Amino acid sequence: MSIERVAIIGLGLLGGSVGLAVAEHLPGVATTGYDADPDVRRRAAERGLVGTVCDTPEDAVAEADLVVLCVPVGAMGAAARSFAAALPEPAIVSDVGSSKQSVGQALAEALPGRCVIPAHPVAGTERSGPDAGFASLFHRRWCILTPPADADPAAVAQLSTFWEALGAKVETMDAAHHDLVLAVTSHIPHLIAYTIVGTASDLEDVTRSEVIKYSAGGFRDFTRIAASDPTMWRDVFLTNRDAVLEMLGRFTEDLTALQRAIRRDDGEALFDLFTRTRDIRRSIVEQGQDDARPDFGRADH
Amino acid sequence: MSIERVAIIGLGLLGGSVGLAVAEHLPGVATTGYDADPDVRRRAAERGLVGTVCDTPEDAVAEADLVVLCVPVGAMGAAARSFAAALPEPAIVSDVGSSKQSVGQALAEALPGRCVIPAHPVAGTERSGPDAGFASLFHRRWCILTPPADADPAAVAQLSTFWEALGAKVETMDAAHHDLVLAVTSHIPHLIAYTIVGTASDLEDVTRSEVIKYSAGGFRDFTRIAASDPTMWRDVFLTNRDAVLEMLGRFTEDLTALQRAIRRDDGEALFDLFTRTRDIRRSIVEQGQDDARPDFGRADH
Repeated sequence: MSIERVAIIGLGLLGGSVGLAVAEHLPGVATTGYDADPDVRRRAAERGLVGTVCDTPEDAVAEADLVVLCVPVGAMGAAARSFAAALPEPAIVSDVGSSKQSVGQALAEALPGRCVIPAHPVAGTERSGPDAGFASLFHRRWCILTPPADADPAAVAQLSTFWEALGAKVETMDAAHHDLVLAVTSHIPHLIAYTIVGTASDLEDVTRSEVIKYSAGGFRDFTRIAASDPTMWRDVFLTNRDAVLEMLGRFTEDLTALQRAIRRDDGEALFDLFTRTRDIRRSIVEQGQDDARPDFGRADH
Repeated sequence: MSIERVAIIGLGLLGGSVGLAVAEHLPGVATTGYDADPDVRRRAAERGLVGTVCDTPEDAVAEADLVVLCVPVGAMGAAARSFAAALPEPAIVSDVGSSKQSVGQALAEALPGRCVIPAHPVAGTERSGPDAGFASLFHRRWCILTPPADADPAAVAQLSTFWEALGAKVETMDAAHHDLVLAVTSHIPHLIAYTIVGTASDLEDVTRSEVIKYSAGGFRDFTRIAASDPTMWRDVFLTNRDAVLEMLGRFTEDLTALQRAIRRDDGEALFDLFTRTRDIRRSIVEQGQDDARPDFGRADH
């Protein structure tokens, strides 16, 4: 069996991008899609995010070889239950959620005995909704599969091949390890960005207008991340709570040490850290995980 | 008197960009430059960052109407002393440093009775050194002047005109207020970025290779800022200590409140903040302070 019909549940940034990427890279594969919001379904049809936009989740999955859930991680279980009765027996069910232990558990409970292989393409932008997706979102990005211990190796291989066809590089790991890694490379950065943007908004002695005018000093970078979808991120923090709290504890310890160095005028400690952190940037650019141009190649240069 | 000869002390990202911007926007203005590092002087001459690269700071300022100090804020006093004896009587001395109370004090002490008007163009990239500068760095960015209370209004007006000619928008404010505003829009964002990149590097249960591979989930944005010049930033934190510690206290209070919300499963508190922070991004883009394209217009889209 190979994947010839893909159903996409949830047609926002990720779902729309999966649909457009399939159309571009796998033109022989048919796509169906569903979104709980009728306005999103209408817009998805206008943009052609999938071949057929269906009015019910059951219709969308009825003939699918692969179902990709692209809804906030807190909504995965309910979404899976909504089409469980119509799901073809051999179909692979996967997702794109940012926390994997909770999603794996929710899908296993909603679809007992079915072939569930959670996945997480590490890609996105600050935009959301049916107008945000684009076909190249997964190019050169990593997609992490977290198959359960008893997963069918042939199904895992098929899902890998699918993501590679969309331009992604595939890695497989344990769901618990995924949740720890992503807590530090994604969840804590988002939490910190949301926090500092909130802190800046609430100041009394610095006006909001000043924060906006002088944002090019560094702050504006954080506002991009802090413009990400609120529902998606609320769910990520609540479903990956333990790993987030663990990594947050380490971050605040390190921040407190720097605060102490500043208070004690310990320039050497600051200089040492600031020198050490340059290497990681270099490696990220060398490995194609970020734009090599200064300032991300922003338009004003 | 109008500004016809500009001396630039320090020929890194900022100094080089001032020189190139003068050449582009004020072709009738002569520029001289000096850098303490002979390799930087050689490279500055090769790139033509200024009209004449001088071998001593005295030579560079000898006929200047305006001297712009572009060295780390901790080195401003020593740099000013190095050319004090050769400084023409009516010359304006200014700078581009990120903390203004300490720079104002250091320059006033080094150049008693002279016309000192500290300034801070809120612009930069993560690059540093004589290869990093470019003529459009100041386009549409704000330049903040913090003239002392007894500054000559005509000199302040000349300096404003100079920065406007380079493409900047000019604002004047009290140095103490500047230091508070920039603590939140620039210094704390840098401190946080350096910290999280350091935290991620030091983990035992997540490898450095994993941090790099999955950095597109948000972390990579922080690595750009954390690749900024270590000497410059060490000096900023040591010279703007009070404002940085004050703003850091507010940030950690807010972060602790979010940590508590996650621990208590309070999705509403998270959702409220995450919704509120979107507006600031919109305003920053509307006011031309950031690239309107998703993901800063990174190359892979």
